[in-house]
Amino acid sequence: MDTEEKTIPDIIVGRLPLYLRALQSMKNEGRQITSSQELAERLGISAAQIRKDLSQFGEFGKQGTGYTIVYLCKEIQKILKVDRVWDMAIVGAGDIGEAVARYQGFTNRGFRVAMVFDNDPEKIGQKKGEFIVQDASQMAEKIREAGIRIAMISVPASNAQEVADELADAGVKAILNYAPVSLNVPPDVRLQHIDPAVHLQRMTYYL
Amino acid sequence: MDTEEKTIPDIIVGRLPLYLRALQSMKNEGRQITSSQELAERLGISAAQIRKDLSQFGEFGKQGTGYTIVYLCKEIQKILKVDRVWDMAIVGAGDIGEAVARYQGFTNRGFRVAMVFDNDPEKIGQKKGEFIVQDASQMAEKIREAGIRIAMISVPASNAQEVADELADAGVKAILNYAPVSLNVPPDVRLQHIDPAVHLQRMTYYL
Repeated sequence: MDTEEKTIPDIIVGRLPLYLRALQSMKNEGRQITSSQELAERLGISAAQIRKDLSQFGEFGKQGTGYTIVYLCKEIQKILKVDRVWDMAIVGAGDIGEAVARYQGFTNRGFRVAMVFDNDPEKIGQKKGEFIVQDASQMAEKIREAGIRIAMISVPASNAQEVADELADAGVKAILNYAPVSLNVPPDVRLQHIDPAVHLQRMTYYL
Repeated sequence: MDTEEKTIPDIIVGRLPLYLRALQSMKNEGRQITSSQELAERLGISAAQIRKDLSQFGEFGKQGTGYTIVYLCKEIQKILKVDRVWDMAIVGAGDIGEAVARYQGFTNRGFRVAMVFDNDPEKIGQKKGEFIVQDASQMAEKIREAGIRIAMISVPASNAQEVADELADAGVKAILNYAPVSLNVPPDVRLQHIDPAVHLQRMTYYL
């Protein structure tokens, strides 16, 4: 089967970052070899599922020998296209935007915050993390110039759709939305949401 | 079929908070009636899927008349057990913990931050949002006394498992984990993760 032609289900793609995160922490622990069983225990995903998921992309381990951690890390990074560093824009320099701008967890994971925008005159020019907040009215232009493809929206829910439209127009192809509202984006733009209340409500059902 | 006996797939439970969020914003817009078609457009989920999901829990609308927004909001709140306000603890008063402590998005969604803990002597006693940061060494006791069932972990990855163990021992049954690491919890504890790099890597695959 030609892997170039094959469409991998998004649910499988969604598990690769978890595998990568676990492998990277094993690497940081100085480990060299792991197994689908060990990954399964760390991740709460079955070893069979992990082997099946990885086999969609190639053959990365040997029966009985396991996976070489550094090698499998590199391969998954290539698959997820995070064997490079993507510049990102943050739109909305409130509490969440600032926390994301200062977030250390992007390092070595393929991302770098490159610019922060807000439309509040009191915030424009202020420093958030290492960034000077820029005027949102120049956002589209700055993003287009820099060729930025990834943005995070951390504006109030009422402005989020408008910002998403502008980002899509400016060439952004992946949006991580922190505003507590669903957004409509063109079919060629990927969208993910982070809304802690949604995550929490999914758990209270079971309490 | 007895709905008391029926186990609803978690994927359906996971969509209810999205329906509720959309219905609540319609309510805030002063709207009274909606349809599965309108919800579908807002959410990017098919109308048939929405009708099927809701039908798992009862009959909430009439063919041709649609759904009464206030009524459906209340019913979904009951199903998700957010027709009450849950007190939550935040563990880790760094940037993320502080942003969550100050987050306005929990209001009217069933949650209230009640306490914030950290183990850093420089942070203990400081104000984060409306909260005085408390000493993490007293966390288990305080959580048990207050009967808190929900907690958010926003400590470094290296401490997150230890904190999760302590929370589970203290009676917490739902954990929202912001630390970029998978956690093991007892089977009666629910766990959800927020890791922006994981969300982003899931999108870069397609770029």
